[in-house]
Amino acid sequence: MNLQERIKFAIRDVPDFPKPGILFKDITPLLKDAALNRDITEKLSDYWSKVEVGVIIGIESRGFFWGNSLAQALGVPFVIARKMGKLPADTYTYTYELEYGSAAIEIHKDAIAIGDRAMIHDDLLATGGTAGAVAELVKMAGGQIAGFSFLLALEFLNGKEVIQKYSRKIHYLASY
Amino acid sequence: MNLQERIKFAIRDVPDFPKPGILFKDITPLLKDAALNRDITEKLSDYWSKVEVGVIIGIESRGFFWGNSLAQALGVPFVIARKMGKLPADTYTYTYELEYGSAAIEIHKDAIAIGDRAMIHDDLLATGGTAGAVAELVKMAGGQIAGFSFLLALEFLNGKEVIQKYSRKIHYLASY
Repeated sequence: MNLQERIKFAIRDVPDFPKPGILFKDITPLLKDAALNRDITEKLSDYWSKVEVGVIIGIESRGFFWGNSLAQALGVPFVIARKMGKLPADTYTYTYELEYGSAAIEIHKDAIAIGDRAMIHDDLLATGGTAGAVAELVKMAGGQIAGFSFLLALEFLNGKEVIQKYSRKIHYLASY
Repeated sequence: MNLQERIKFAIRDVPDFPKPGILFKDITPLLKDAALNRDITEKLSDYWSKVEVGVIIGIESRGFFWGNSLAQALGVPFVIARKMGKLPADTYTYTYELEYGSAAIEIHKDAIAIGDRAMIHDDLLATGGTAGAVAELVKMAGGQIAGFSFLLALEFLNGKEVIQKYSRKIHYLASY
């Protein structure tokens, strides 16, 4: 099996989580498979080592697993984007609409410098709302968007259309 | 500077977070320093490669950064412990007391097998309440505690006394 097949084979579908009607893609089996865990970092590194990336932003909290291992592999700073109120120091905050209600996400003000080329990483590209919100945070800090990285994309939700205005470089390892 | 000094030099003290009177140890600068980020993984790996560890459990969410990079370095499975309601599949749940009120933490039921030697990792050892709760989860799953790993310990809070009943192997890179 190639890596996409190994990932899709390992992922566990959990029906009705977090609410009825949603088929949740559980990535915890990818962390439990030590060889697959490493191979994911290596594959991400193969791709992103050819792109000019100055800093990686991992989105809370499933963007932390491979976001930081990739940052270590590439030797670039790792920055975390968290839900409002979780980061201790001064932050930029961006509020965005969800299907029901709204959400707010933050980065530390000193996390991104003017001109920094930030790559935004999360486990899953769904509607693109959160990744787009983090791109707005990068812009607030004066940084540039080097691209977007995901393990998985749910292509039928058209998240690419939401985030491609920030960068055309959108990479993922497996899709549905 | 040695690694302990580099870590303590990099950490940012944030007063009155998350509530008045608490001096929060912000570890985000450790992630932003690419060399330090790697060196932390290497140092953890130096120590834990000499211990019989079958699986690493990272505690949400700051235990995810080096928990997974260490699991990749050691080539062992990585399991996540999360606050109640965040894990999608069947879980063990352990409820424990906090200074005000209580908290509940979970692991997936299939994350630890009977006899597995689980090492429990988090960024900070404070009172030991959360790390001890995760040790209880390991016991519920029939696993053994291989030890505890932290970046930092606030020794004046005596967390060691709470968790040493599970394992005497308690390792951290820097302390206050």
